[in-house]
Amino acid sequence: MKKPFWKKEKNGSVTTPKGFVAGGIHAGIKKKKKKYDVSLTYSKTPCVAAGTFTTNRAKAWPVLYSMKAIHASKHHAILGTSGNANCLNGPIGKKAVDEITWEAAKYLDVLPQEVLLAQTGIIGVPFPITCVKRAMPKLVKRLSETGGHGAAKGILTTDLSSKEIALSLELGGKKVTIAACAKGAGMVHPNMATMLCFITTDAAITKSLLRRAVRHAADDTFNQMAIDNDMSTNDMVLCLANGEAGNPPIQKIGKDYWMFRETLEEVMRYIAHEMVTDGEGVTHVCRLRVSGAKKPTDAERAARQIANSMLFKTMLAGSNPNWGRIAAAVGASGVDFNPNNLSIWFGDAQVVNQGRLRVLNLPKARRILQKKEYTIDVVIGKGRGRADFITSDLTTKYVLINAAYS
Amino acid sequence: MKKPFWKKEKNGSVTTPKGFVAGGIHAGIKKKKKKYDVSLTYSKTPCVAAGTFTTNRAKAWPVLYSMKAIHASKHHAILGTSGNANCLNGPIGKKAVDEITWEAAKYLDVLPQEVLLAQTGIIGVPFPITCVKRAMPKLVKRLSETGGHGAAKGILTTDLSSKEIALSLELGGKKVTIAACAKGAGMVHPNMATMLCFITTDAAITKSLLRRAVRHAADDTFNQMAIDNDMSTNDMVLCLANGEAGNPPIQKIGKDYWMFRETLEEVMRYIAHEMVTDGEGVTHVCRLRVSGAKKPTDAERAARQIANSMLFKTMLAGSNPNWGRIAAAVGASGVDFNPNNLSIWFGDAQVVNQGRLRVLNLPKARRILQKKEYTIDVVIGKGRGRADFITSDLTTKYVLINAAYS
Repeated sequence: MKKPFWKKEKNGSVTTPKGFVAGGIHAGIKKKKKKYDVSLTYSKTPCVAAGTFTTNRAKAWPVLYSMKAIHASKHHAILGTSGNANCLNGPIGKKAVDEITWEAAKYLDVLPQEVLLAQTGIIGVPFPITCVKRAMPKLVKRLSETGGHGAAKGILTTDLSSKEIALSLELGGKKVTIAACAKGAGMVHPNMATMLCFITTDAAITKSLLRRAVRHAADDTFNQMAIDNDMSTNDMVLCLANGEAGNPPIQKIGKDYWMFRETLEEVMRYIAHEMVTDGEGVTHVCRLRVSGAKKPTDAERAARQIANSMLFKTMLAGSNPNWGRIAAAVGASGVDFNPNNLSIWFGDAQVVNQGRLRVLNLPKARRILQKKEYTIDVVIGKGRGRADFITSDLTTKYVLINAAYS
Repeated sequence: MKKPFWKKEKNGSVTTPKGFVAGGIHAGIKKKKKKYDVSLTYSKTPCVAAGTFTTNRAKAWPVLYSMKAIHASKHHAILGTSGNANCLNGPIGKKAVDEITWEAAKYLDVLPQEVLLAQTGIIGVPFPITCVKRAMPKLVKRLSETGGHGAAKGILTTDLSSKEIALSLELGGKKVTIAACAKGAGMVHPNMATMLCFITTDAAITKSLLRRAVRHAADDTFNQMAIDNDMSTNDMVLCLANGEAGNPPIQKIGKDYWMFRETLEEVMRYIAHEMVTDGEGVTHVCRLRVSGAKKPTDAERAARQIANSMLFKTMLAGSNPNWGRIAAAVGASGVDFNPNNLSIWFGDAQVVNQGRLRVLNLPKARRILQKKEYTIDVVIGKGRGRADFITSDLTTKYVLINAAYS
């Protein structure tokens, strides 16, 4: 493995890149007094922005809003709220979006469409507009260069902890930083609770290349947690780039673009991993690699079916190398596959070799499944299609959390 | 509702129809001594047979065997075993199928292909051929006209109880009986553990019409528990008809066919309902009706997505009318749907009316969700597509059972 060209920043947050200030406070959406429920990230220098949004047909109001607002040529801020998804709550939800973005824009002295909005929480409940509006002056006052962690807290729901990172790289002799904060939790897959990710960077890059980089990097990271079809109503990845690093602007797909893109992907990969690790009730994290499929789409389909399987997920919870459940899931996925070519590794313990069980390796496989993190390799044939997923176990705690949540 | 033309037989089992004998014993596949693990159902009169089989690409050996054997013109018996799925265990699995069907045929004095075979249990483990062969004389000796319940027990795995029924109807002045026993358990959907169903009838019917009736009735019952794509490696429905009732043979699609078909469907519906009720850890059974879709396939897709959703299933476990999870699942299914046309009833408590929450009905909805069984109606638009599913909750007990099973 080659040495990465990026560097992880200590205590990184969305305010680590130059020119960004941020903050979070408690406005009153969440009932628990101490919990932050609003989050603001701001750059005085105008930014180019890019985003990817849920494909769910029931899109929350902030998704409908930001999908439109993202087309503006420049942006200044990302407003986030948690505790109420502002989704499927009728016309009041639209009103809420309009009023709170307008209020934020007023205090930041920018245009409303220059404020992007993401929200998360419970669906189908009227949004408490007044408390958020009332909190806006305080939230804007709270903005600071060290406020990234506060902004990260303002979007959490059932998450156990904030997910934050900042990586820096050198482009044209200048230090460029890319940072992110996110909200995950839920099972991530197949019915993930809302996933939000805010990315800030001081890179100078065109809007179209930023859009391209964000979309492709998300495909290779967040969408390999298998989000697409099963996305929640509010999922969103937003990225602001303000150019404050002073690097030669990235205007074409060349070396600088690739270095930027790869670092961005690393940021997202870290966040995706943190999301799975912090999934509701998760005790084991599994990197699931499917290979040998006829086509990459076949590999993805098989991996998705495995990662989806409740029997597979409970098997991980029980640290039980019941490989038959993997084989059954591959069979159920409908991809072309001959059980006699199937090989399965739990970590480095091969349990199935060309369709034959290697009984002696089962105890070792069991020990590997007892670890907090491991890789499972599934070779389904002789093709070249591969897919690399990240998934987790299904525990009684998940059930308890989600039976109670409302 | 019109009065049904069929009658439920008391204490019904696969030996209720005329001419069938059956029995079950402990052969040694299961470790627990008292548990039956082999099952035999036999008719001296030759039967026509029909079956439906899993669409999983990783088909167990008994599936491959019975799919072929079903094409013989007549059959005499169904052999079932439990404790070992005889699946993905290499050539020894094929040998097991050949030897145990041959052994059964020998003691029954029929041809091997006249014995159909179904197996269930753990995947990927060599099948203990010897103990089953050794038990065969005893099993055949056990066959009796009251042995239906024993045969039903011989195919259970994690099921809490046998699932059996017999319904009778009159065709051309003769009493015709249709009976079934089944093995279900597992979550049924989306990753159902093996589902086996053996049906016996003394009706006189042609092989092709029996096949048609079985396939269509299964589509309207078992496949509405949403099995197809996610079927296990061993799923199978087998039906033997021996003609002993003496009814005028059903040779065309006329009134007799439809009465037979409807009664058969009722048998399967009962079994499907029992399977869901007896699902692993199930505490609530939900009849999920989706209507108003543009096409029936859209309704089915939406229903499947809802029934699949872990968030929905845990909501049922918690008796929580968190209707947003239903809306999000419909949105995620990708069917054409406008949230503003969405209406949702929990039992007779309407919680969403044309996209608007009816807050006052929430307490009533909560009380309904506390019942053991209820209906949830989801109207997604103004179309005429409908789907009627049966599903269950996801509980901590399910997780515990499946984390431990191996």
